[in-house]
Amino acid sequence: MHIGRRRISGAPEWIMQAIDFQTDPSRYRHWRIERDGEVAYLIMDVDQAGALNGGEYELKLNSYDLGVDIELNDAVQRLRFEHPEVRCVVIKSGKDNVFCAGANIRMLGKSTHGQKVNFCKFTNETRFAIEDASKNSKQTYICAINGNAAGGGYELALAADHIMLVDDRRSAVALPETPLLAVLPGTGGLTRVTDKRKVRRDRADVFCSLEEGMRGAKAVEWRLVDEVVPTSKWKETVTQRAHEIAARSDRPKDANGIKFNPLARKIEADRITYPNVDVEIDRARALVTITVRGPSDSEPASVEAAHALGDKFWPLAVARELEDAILHLRANEAALGVVLLRTEGKALAVLDHDAFLSQYDSDWLMREIRHYFKRTLKRIDTTPKSFIALIEPGSCFAGTLAELAFAADRSFMLIGTRDGDNRPPAAIVLGHVNFGLYPMGNGLTRLQTRFLGEPDTLKTAQDKIGIALDAQAADKLGIITTAYESFDWDDELRVMLEERTSFSPDAMTGMEANLRFAGPETMETKIFGRLTAWQNWIFQRPNAIGEQGALKLYGSGVSPTFNKERV
Amino acid sequence: MHIGRRRISGAPEWIMQAIDFQTDPSRYRHWRIERDGEVAYLIMDVDQAGALNGGEYELKLNSYDLGVDIELNDAVQRLRFEHPEVRCVVIKSGKDNVFCAGANIRMLGKSTHGQKVNFCKFTNETRFAIEDASKNSKQTYICAINGNAAGGGYELALAADHIMLVDDRRSAVALPETPLLAVLPGTGGLTRVTDKRKVRRDRADVFCSLEEGMRGAKAVEWRLVDEVVPTSKWKETVTQRAHEIAARSDRPKDANGIKFNPLARKIEADRITYPNVDVEIDRARALVTITVRGPSDSEPASVEAAHALGDKFWPLAVARELEDAILHLRANEAALGVVLLRTEGKALAVLDHDAFLSQYDSDWLMREIRHYFKRTLKRIDTTPKSFIALIEPGSCFAGTLAELAFAADRSFMLIGTRDGDNRPPAAIVLGHVNFGLYPMGNGLTRLQTRFLGEPDTLKTAQDKIGIALDAQAADKLGIITTAYESFDWDDELRVMLEERTSFSPDAMTGMEANLRFAGPETMETKIFGRLTAWQNWIFQRPNAIGEQGALKLYGSGVSPTFNKERV
Repeated sequence: MHIGRRRISGAPEWIMQAIDFQTDPSRYRHWRIERDGEVAYLIMDVDQAGALNGGEYELKLNSYDLGVDIELNDAVQRLRFEHPEVRCVVIKSGKDNVFCAGANIRMLGKSTHGQKVNFCKFTNETRFAIEDASKNSKQTYICAINGNAAGGGYELALAADHIMLVDDRRSAVALPETPLLAVLPGTGGLTRVTDKRKVRRDRADVFCSLEEGMRGAKAVEWRLVDEVVPTSKWKETVTQRAHEIAARSDRPKDANGIKFNPLARKIEADRITYPNVDVEIDRARALVTITVRGPSDSEPASVEAAHALGDKFWPLAVARELEDAILHLRANEAALGVVLLRTEGKALAVLDHDAFLSQYDSDWLMREIRHYFKRTLKRIDTTPKSFIALIEPGSCFAGTLAELAFAADRSFMLIGTRDGDNRPPAAIVLGHVNFGLYPMGNGLTRLQTRFLGEPDTLKTAQDKIGIALDAQAADKLGIITTAYESFDWDDELRVMLEERTSFSPDAMTGMEANLRFAGPETMETKIFGRLTAWQNWIFQRPNAIGEQGALKLYGSGVSPTFNKERV
Repeated sequence: MHIGRRRISGAPEWIMQAIDFQTDPSRYRHWRIERDGEVAYLIMDVDQAGALNGGEYELKLNSYDLGVDIELNDAVQRLRFEHPEVRCVVIKSGKDNVFCAGANIRMLGKSTHGQKVNFCKFTNETRFAIEDASKNSKQTYICAINGNAAGGGYELALAADHIMLVDDRRSAVALPETPLLAVLPGTGGLTRVTDKRKVRRDRADVFCSLEEGMRGAKAVEWRLVDEVVPTSKWKETVTQRAHEIAARSDRPKDANGIKFNPLARKIEADRITYPNVDVEIDRARALVTITVRGPSDSEPASVEAAHALGDKFWPLAVARELEDAILHLRANEAALGVVLLRTEGKALAVLDHDAFLSQYDSDWLMREIRHYFKRTLKRIDTTPKSFIALIEPGSCFAGTLAELAFAADRSFMLIGTRDGDNRPPAAIVLGHVNFGLYPMGNGLTRLQTRFLGEPDTLKTAQDKIGIALDAQAADKLGIITTAYESFDWDDELRVMLEERTSFSPDAMTGMEANLRFAGPETMETKIFGRLTAWQNWIFQRPNAIGEQGALKLYGSGVSPTFNKERV
């Protein structure tokens, strides 16, 4: 029995071994958390027999696969919610003489192209979640490299705010992907070296060509690490640094965390049901419908009441459930190319919850929830599926849930009502949250990105906050793609979906990866755009994955043979 | 006998049909230039029998291949230098009812991966050269779309500052690559739609999915074109608009252009010789050495004297020759992965020419020369080869030529002199030009990009302007990668080159494409980074290029079969 594995009865054969993104510390095989008051130690101690797929490869030397990163992601999320008292997290290795050897090469060698791409995307998101915790939760990560940190091992360290390297004359940091494997340090490595650590380009070139990496004073001089510490002073210096950094946090010292309980999730062949989210699969049409339900209860009476609700508090519950659904569809349902995004419920209830979150914005838990929702929305932005929002009577695209419509590639809105349906016509209601709370990877809100060419419209939209905008009003304002009368709706939707699913899935992925991120690029969009795209390109090249390719032959003792043509 | 073709005697078989990037209007087969005082008409009238490779495909409907774009690039360059009086350039079609059908699909279908990538890169550079002329030379491009502009045809239009579309109820603009060909509008199309024209993302999504494209008022409303004009008023409105735009130019009305004569270039199997540039090929080591010679004469006595020199004036001659060498190596010598960059001459002579250019910066020709050099340096930045600068006694890495060292991935500098060589030790001399004159695609100078992490060093470097910096000083300042004593030089260089050429060429391309552009991304770096990388990825996918792929089957009447998995 392996972590992240379950059988899904009744599902098609290829999904019988679906990857599960849910776990909890009691099930961790690769990480453990030790706490010392305001400091937590996140200790990587990979079980080499704990590979995600069973026994096809061994996770030696703290190398990792998706299963290891699923645990890391879980730990990073939980630390924020379950441990408000933790103000500094120290990532270190639980093994002697090795920090982390990076992504497991045999795993990469055996993975399909899609698996490689999906693995890198998820690990990249986890790295950004670490940076998000440091920056926005003041739960700051430092990395204490006690042993070699190679490839993805160093890329993990690069996500920390402060990198310490033991000066034992052996331990080094390295990005040996290019010389050893003919692929890139593609989990942020190249970009974080030049753009976060701002290493000089020629030094970065030297460093990324060095199998053995760098250590000692030179690693500091080149800005690859922040400090090197003699072995004799290692432990005390790490502790000291952690407490110094913890002292700068604004997290509460006496708050109680809330517990992340297992998701109340029911998985069937073509349906996944959560308390607030439904996923329905139409395999014949290569289509998924995700329905997000608005709050069934009023907002809590007090912030204490919200804390008491814990992970049942609607905004948090939706963020977790929606995120799980997206991750599941990405990893396990690649053949479903289009996602219809629906909502059900009362706009007012969503807006009341938004107002509640804003009112208690200084509360640590409300802050966490807001950032969680932001990260979930970003998962949509980087998901290679076409998202189409359907805005119909009974929906509640208001405030936070309106972001789903803005995250979609297109939105359809019904004008008026349907025969026999006595619910009022659909409306979109903008809230303050749509104007700053949920920035995309490019640093802009979805509405800012949308209205890059018409800043006046952004102002007009802001004036409409709180007003129920029917289909014509939403169309006029430009916040939906198209409004349809009920007699056109079915045909227009059917034609669009038939067309969409007839297009090349690769062309759709490339198109969406470009159209979704207008405006400025940040380190985040650079990593998901430039770096990832080049890595994906290389992940198809015979020099990496062919029978004579480096990734294929690694560890076999046979040297790769390269086609020397430069493209 | 086809444009752009020549036989290179003695060269290996695969290079017998090298692509030549030099041409002139007397040899154009696809474009003609008509001048009307301050307005020039650049008329696309593609000879369908004029394909670059001879007869493998027909260039129907003003579709284009690299040969067509080589002429366009030549025309764009010449208009700036040979016609200072031209203040507005109107791109239009010389055929009835069709503007341009974009890149020729059969050509793409028959091209190797490398040829496709190289073709797109060059056309992208040409589009940016058009924008550079509008912005920096005030020779502003407008596009008068008289017929259908599809795919690359519309991408060409997107490079113009003002797009006019005839309202004849037929003519439309379209980016049908995704629905028809399973590839991207990859010559800037997606990025210019969202980032230059700032089209709303959902509208861009709709537009890029529409085979038939858009026309009329809706095309204006969606910002796809700037105006639509009834057929009856087409000619007069285009003329009027051209003169309005011309009136805003600061180009001189009474100046004489200078002529671009054919390059005095001698091509041998393993050597290309220009008056100021030598290219030496070492095929056994997969290595090229480019040597740029500094000026042999003093700077001209007056700006009139510089004009009289015309294309013999050293900075312009070097820009043209170096550019030709780079383009040749890219297109025709893919197997050579490493370029050694050398200079020979007197630093003072380079600096005197720089000073001359600065002194007469308000002269239209000096301005053109400066921007030409800037564009040539950018060609290096986007060339998929490793550049290593060798800074040795006798070199002149000063001012403009020092940029070559900063454009390189690494630089080696010799400490002191070699036995038996009585020339003084090598020195780098910084000039004002290194601090603003030659921005990279990211909008920063190469030194700004280099010192992103240490702005103080940038200031220190500025204080050293005009001072000869020997190897130790240059090393200390951080403007070279490594300084070596003469007894280490040969071994260090040999080991580095052996290592470099042993690495996967694809991994090097991906690594360099990431490390070279730290800091902000612009539309230019977005197109060369994000968009190009995704297009290159798709250019390898079976859904595009497999036997059942869309690019392969286009025009055959057989529909493509797609693997529906989303990656």
